[in-house]
Amino acid sequence: MFVNVEHIGIAVKELAEAENLYSRLFSVLPYKREMVESESVSTSFFKINETKIELLEATSSDSVISKFIEKKGEGFHHVAFEVDDIVSEMARLKGEGFTLLSETPKRGADNKLVCFLHPKSTNGLLIELCQEIRQ
Amino acid sequence: MFVNVEHIGIAVKELAEAENLYSRLFSVLPYKREMVESESVSTSFFKINETKIELLEATSSDSVISKFIEKKGEGFHHVAFEVDDIVSEMARLKGEGFTLLSETPKRGADNKLVCFLHPKSTNGLLIELCQEIRQ
Repeated sequence: MFVNVEHIGIAVKELAEAENLYSRLFSVLPYKREMVESESVSTSFFKINETKIELLEATSSDSVISKFIEKKGEGFHHVAFEVDDIVSEMARLKGEGFTLLSETPKRGADNKLVCFLHPKSTNGLLIELCQEIRQ
Repeated sequence: MFVNVEHIGIAVKELAEAENLYSRLFSVLPYKREMVESESVSTSFFKINETKIELLEATSSDSVISKFIEKKGEGFHHVAFEVDDIVSEMARLKGEGFTLLSETPKRGADNKLVCFLHPKSTNGLLIELCQEIRQ
């Protein structure tokens, strides 16, 4: 089940500059920064009610974020939906004909298991499913 | 004050097809359709927790949605933040150097007063501010 719009990911060139801009926009400061080494991205998080805004800066030229900005420029990158059971949602969506970008959930930022859906199967929208890792 | 991610707007070519796709994605049906004559768009709404997903189909070739899809294809169009006082937020953001697309709030879909910020002033992200119209 889809339970929440967990976050919106925004590709930016310069994290510090974007943090400044979004701080002025929201009138709040980012509450944390986090590196995701496996994706070569540095992230910064804001929170508005139940939804986070995740700024994404590439830390190397082969990061997906570098490639995205090269092709499309800065801006919206993906939307992440929190699901109650990522494994069962992945199986359900595969059965519905959506294309998953991994066969099993991967470890993402913010203590989450994540899986992306190919935007070709979702009207051009890059969608992430995520589920909090329970200790 | 920014109080919620009110909705995410997604530009689609065929509303009925996209409704079908997003119904299968979310496992819920859209809860309403609404025409916004002034913008030449037909919209359909899903709700996930506190955030709506608004599908946007152009109803004429001079709609902003037609032009957007021509240029960028289907997919993410804008994110709307609910604010507690749209007039004071517009003044604050103008003072912070953001570019507003209208000087006063306009009437949008879903019983809202709305104002857009120019994406050039927000890292390429089209942002809508909105506030429920109180009767």
